Amino acid sequence: MPENRRFLLRRRPDGEPVREDFALVTQQTPVLADGQFLIRNHYASLDPAMRGWMDDAESYMPPIPLDNPVRASTIGMVEESRAEGFAPGQWVMGLNGIEDYSVGMVGGFTQPIDPAMVPQVTNYLSLFGAVGMTAYFGFFDVCEPQKGETVLVTGAAGAVGSIVGQLAKIAGCRAIGIAGGPEKCARLTGRYGFDAAIDYRGKDEAALTHAIAQAAPDGVDIIFENVGGIILDAGLTNLNLHARVGLCGLISEYNTPPRGARNLWQLIVNRASIRGLLVADYVARFGEGAAKMAPWAASGQIVIDEHIDEGIENAYDAFMRLFAGTNQGKMILKLT
Amino acid sequence: MPENRRFLLRRRPDGEPVREDFALVTQQTPVLADGQFLIRNHYASLDPAMRGWMDDAESYMPPIPLDNPVRASTIGMVEESRAEGFAPGQWVMGLNGIEDYSVGMVGGFTQPIDPAMVPQVTNYLSLFGAVGMTAYFGFFDVCEPQKGETVLVTGAAGAVGSIVGQLAKIAGCRAIGIAGGPEKCARLTGRYGFDAAIDYRGKDEAALTHAIAQAAPDGVDIIFENVGGIILDAGLTNLNLHARVGLCGLISEYNTPPRGARNLWQLIVNRASIRGLLVADYVARFGEGAAKMAPWAASGQIVIDEHIDEGIENAYDAFMRLFAGTNQGKMILKLT
Repeated sequence: MPENRRFLLRRRPDGEPVREDFALVTQQTPVLADGQFLIRNHYASLDPAMRGWMDDAESYMPPIPLDNPVRASTIGMVEESRAEGFAPGQWVMGLNGIEDYSVGMVGGFTQPIDPAMVPQVTNYLSLFGAVGMTAYFGFFDVCEPQKGETVLVTGAAGAVGSIVGQLAKIAGCRAIGIAGGPEKCARLTGRYGFDAAIDYRGKDEAALTHAIAQAAPDGVDIIFENVGGIILDAGLTNLNLHARVGLCGLISEYNTPPRGARNLWQLIVNRASIRGLLVADYVARFGEGAAKMAPWAASGQIVIDEHIDEGIENAYDAFMRLFAGTNQGKMILKLT
Repeated sequence: MPENRRFLLRRRPDGEPVREDFALVTQQTPVLADGQFLIRNHYASLDPAMRGWMDDAESYMPPIPLDNPVRASTIGMVEESRAEGFAPGQWVMGLNGIEDYSVGMVGGFTQPIDPAMVPQVTNYLSLFGAVGMTAYFGFFDVCEPQKGETVLVTGAAGAVGSIVGQLAKIAGCRAIGIAGGPEKCARLTGRYGFDAAIDYRGKDEAALTHAIAQAAPDGVDIIFENVGGIILDAGLTNLNLHARVGLCGLISEYNTPPRGARNLWQLIVNRASIRGLLVADYVARFGEGAAKMAPWAASGQIVIDEHIDEGIENAYDAFMRLFAGTNQGKMILKLT
């Protein structure tokens, strides 16, 4: 049997994850039981939510057990099977780990996928995976956009945010994006079609509040929030009556004690709401989301960027790009 | 003409209001123009929201102008009239000021009331005024209670909170209240029918979180939030899936820089929402709310407490009770 390189969680990070929180080890490839199949992982999705799974905290999913591989959505190919419906050579996607080989089972989270249905098989980790579905259902179902409204997207150059901005334009809204650095901001307006981009770097809450007010002189009707902290607070100060904040993530608070949302008073002033969203609620409707977005992708109304780093030995550095903001698009690790 | 004692806002409070931010002055009683009437104010409602109106900040209402009387809902009697429909001797309620005499006008915020419709005329400032309507519409419309759910009310011994707890019981919910001190907690369970009471005094966030978990072993489905700060954060940690937080007030943050809500992550974990509520949105439906609550009040299913201090010269001390928590029920100032 081949060796199985696995990127293990060795200890729970205290704040920002450090290299020593993880270990790359080589272990035996598991032997299959009946109903199981062996997946050769080709790509692993790297997402901010994984940081939360590393903590020993109650959440929507159990923590990653110590000395287990870091949990991630992966795309791979069935290498060996003792399970009906999963023949060797079949492409699959599932919630597995950052490791060469994972074990899937019938009735588990791993499902067959058809690479012929998408331009690149990795698109199952971006537009046609959890990322794209988070954008689609988070925006349309949770934020309930109306034509002509102003939409503020934070973390707008990220995997989810860049899609939300394009969906906002498709919905007939004005789209304003917040991102870090001039390069990303240029990408927001130049490539994703945002109407305006705000560089948060070097801005305090007052400067951010002012920048949003300038980009949204009629106020903000929807915030698609990925960041939290002063960026969320600056957004809250610019809300319109009956505004909706779709709370998708709080990446600024994953590695530090949360600063807290200090402008909740604005929710009362504007009878506005903040609603948490999780793509897991929409699994049964993924087909609907994919069917809507496929023609938009085919016609170029939605463009996606994937930032693919190579090699399981680079898993830590690739993951940390998410927090440094040095990825240009959906972060993916190529394992083979 | 009689003299008009007026409780003026002299300067904008910096944090907790101090006595010197106000001044009691005697001015001439205004002379009426056509379409106006003179109101002899008998009672003024003292509410936490008034603290916000004292700041020079954008809100749902313009700030109280300096050297003007502190804005308040008042009940009074028409003393003199040059307006149709407002004859001398008519009882009225409106958004006026803490002063002996206010001027009303046709088409303004002052409306006739009928003292014969309620046990005490002051009930128009509690159960049948903004307070009662905030409780009724905030709970039923914003929080959407279902029978059997668990409702956490913060500021539960306050004017709005005490009514919300009783509405929760009427709706078939389990009601848990948070208040300050053993006397108030005894009132929650003994007088208002809450199933459990939590004394927040001397408890840090962890202790509050634990106390809520003990009182709500199956989690919290609804929070009716009047307080904010660590009390809100402790509540968020105990939310159930699809929980609703009706955000009515943030009294812990009105006189200090806000600490901020640091557990917003729980909204994602539980796909829960926070929605700001303001009674002004429901003015057209006040009749509906009053019609629902009148029989509950008559049958004793809802009891209300009014804490009435006397004398305009005591306006500052009476108002500050709201922040010290020394009022026992809806805070009202008797002016004559």
